[in-house]
Amino acid sequence: MTQPARFDIIAIGNAIVDVIARADDDFLAAHGMTKGGMQLIDAAGAEKIYAAMGPGLEMSGGSAANSLAGMAALGARCAFIGVVADDQLGQVFRHDLTALGVHFTTPARPGQPPTARCLILVTPDGQRTMNTFLGASQHLGADAFDAAQIADADILYLEGYLWNADASRAAMAGAIAMARAAGRRVAFTLSDGFVIAAHGDDFRAMLDAGDIDILFANEAEIMALSGLDDFDAAVAKIAAQTPLLIATRGEKGAVAVSNGVRHIVAAEPIDQVVDTTGAGDLFAAGFLAGLAQGRSIDDCLTMGALCARAIIAQVGPRAQCDLAAMVAARLG
Amino acid sequence: MTQPARFDIIAIGNAIVDVIARADDDFLAAHGMTKGGMQLIDAAGAEKIYAAMGPGLEMSGGSAANSLAGMAALGARCAFIGVVADDQLGQVFRHDLTALGVHFTTPARPGQPPTARCLILVTPDGQRTMNTFLGASQHLGADAFDAAQIADADILYLEGYLWNADASRAAMAGAIAMARAAGRRVAFTLSDGFVIAAHGDDFRAMLDAGDIDILFANEAEIMALSGLDDFDAAVAKIAAQTPLLIATRGEKGAVAVSNGVRHIVAAEPIDQVVDTTGAGDLFAAGFLAGLAQGRSIDDCLTMGALCARAIIAQVGPRAQCDLAAMVAARLG
Repeated sequence: MTQPARFDIIAIGNAIVDVIARADDDFLAAHGMTKGGMQLIDAAGAEKIYAAMGPGLEMSGGSAANSLAGMAALGARCAFIGVVADDQLGQVFRHDLTALGVHFTTPARPGQPPTARCLILVTPDGQRTMNTFLGASQHLGADAFDAAQIADADILYLEGYLWNADASRAAMAGAIAMARAAGRRVAFTLSDGFVIAAHGDDFRAMLDAGDIDILFANEAEIMALSGLDDFDAAVAKIAAQTPLLIATRGEKGAVAVSNGVRHIVAAEPIDQVVDTTGAGDLFAAGFLAGLAQGRSIDDCLTMGALCARAIIAQVGPRAQCDLAAMVAARLG
Repeated sequence: MTQPARFDIIAIGNAIVDVIARADDDFLAAHGMTKGGMQLIDAAGAEKIYAAMGPGLEMSGGSAANSLAGMAALGARCAFIGVVADDQLGQVFRHDLTALGVHFTTPARPGQPPTARCLILVTPDGQRTMNTFLGASQHLGADAFDAAQIADADILYLEGYLWNADASRAAMAGAIAMARAAGRRVAFTLSDGFVIAAHGDDFRAMLDAGDIDILFANEAEIMALSGLDDFDAAVAKIAAQTPLLIATRGEKGAVAVSNGVRHIVAAEPIDQVVDTTGAGDLFAAGFLAGLAQGRSIDDCLTMGALCARAIIAQVGPRAQCDLAAMVAARLG
């Protein structure tokens, strides 16, 4: 028998502060960025892009951390593991999670490099293009957590972006084993096509081993992971390997397949997409918060769609509106 | 004869990064804050408020710097003098001005204290309440500028907030004298009732001496400065002491008195006030940019009203929309 857990979810993720600025398509082209994607940059690259980009706003980010912030706002009991540096951006990142009641005790890492930042360019169509300097976050290794922590949450949530750093990637097998040993579920988000291109074999092996209980993917990601260029076929293939698959498709809504049963939800209508940063993260937040509340898969999907709409109607990936009130207004 | 100036305006102001979070009226009351006002806090006070407030977003701020950012976005040639620390928030502040083409070469101050920050609570009615930790910005003294710099701008723009720090306050008489000696105009914003309560005698003496060519005030400020509790009487009294007075009244619009001639503008209609942070700063930006373009006082007022509306329709005091396009759509 598993013990009752202190947390609904514990997430391991890159601890990143976003720097968000408006840009046009020409800017992306001039800097060799792939619109809508994510690329890793080093310190020199970050300096160069920052010097060229317009005035920014800073908001805490990080994919799993964004999801956790949304879940906490929706009332879930959350814990986070991630590495910031002992600097001002690190303080900002920590504050923005703990202010929501998220348990976050990973110590700040002294010295260089500084806290991770993601330079995000938002084009007039609302699409975001990300340039990530991993900084201190890449020093998240196996020493950042232990079995007792992992065992104390119903769900362990990992982001594919963790596979970008050698230390983090190596540590994740251990985290998954700890969750398995404690009888907990493992949730995983594929994060980005770039990550799948580099580490898709790892992810497919995890699915083959039955190590992923809940998988989040967007349309491009599930096709990349499956090797199929038809969305429905890709969903069918991957759904056979995990008890719960959630595949999002932007304005085409989302699909969940739970133990072989398919559920769909339409995207929530929106007047203007301001900034897609965090759309997938907040879909996951709404869905997982619904799961933690024991809601039906259909209601979980609705919560995901509501949260995703809320986040693309604003700048930045941390909700400035009252997510709980928004969900209560729809679902009670 | 005065020489042609390199810049339309040079502003001296506190170099501050804003940390903006949502809060309710109870939070303000619990922390003894006066809604809509500004209070100075020390490092311990900043830590206490930050620990209690919700997740934030960070955006460069500072009253005169906000105005300058708006003016630069509107095409004015701008320079800034202000002191940041050699830290991450200081880099953010510098980037956000220089990215707009503002000339800003005041060196960062090494060591403690850190860059100034303003903890801003925005209540559901959109009103902002500010708590300012002056940090490095209070070390702006007479050594931060010289006569050649001041002489190289048509207008010297000062914020009343500078009077909050001893070093800055003492330096401002010198800056004004430099502008006068070079045949330049001096513009001044009263900033806040708190500042007038403490330093109103200084401001009245500056008016008596004929040292202020352009004065910005809101309704409460001009009444506090004049000692009169009737807005029109206050405007009439102060307008007799300065060639150009601009008095803003929020949703009641604004008044300008230029060499004795009164001009009015209505507030621009707005669906929802999101956050009033920077409303006065952006009104001044629009007005001064209009002056720099040689527009009529009526058009300058319209530009002020347009910019103020743009900034209260978003979170934070630096415009995320295209101010120049907005003005061009109205005035050509």
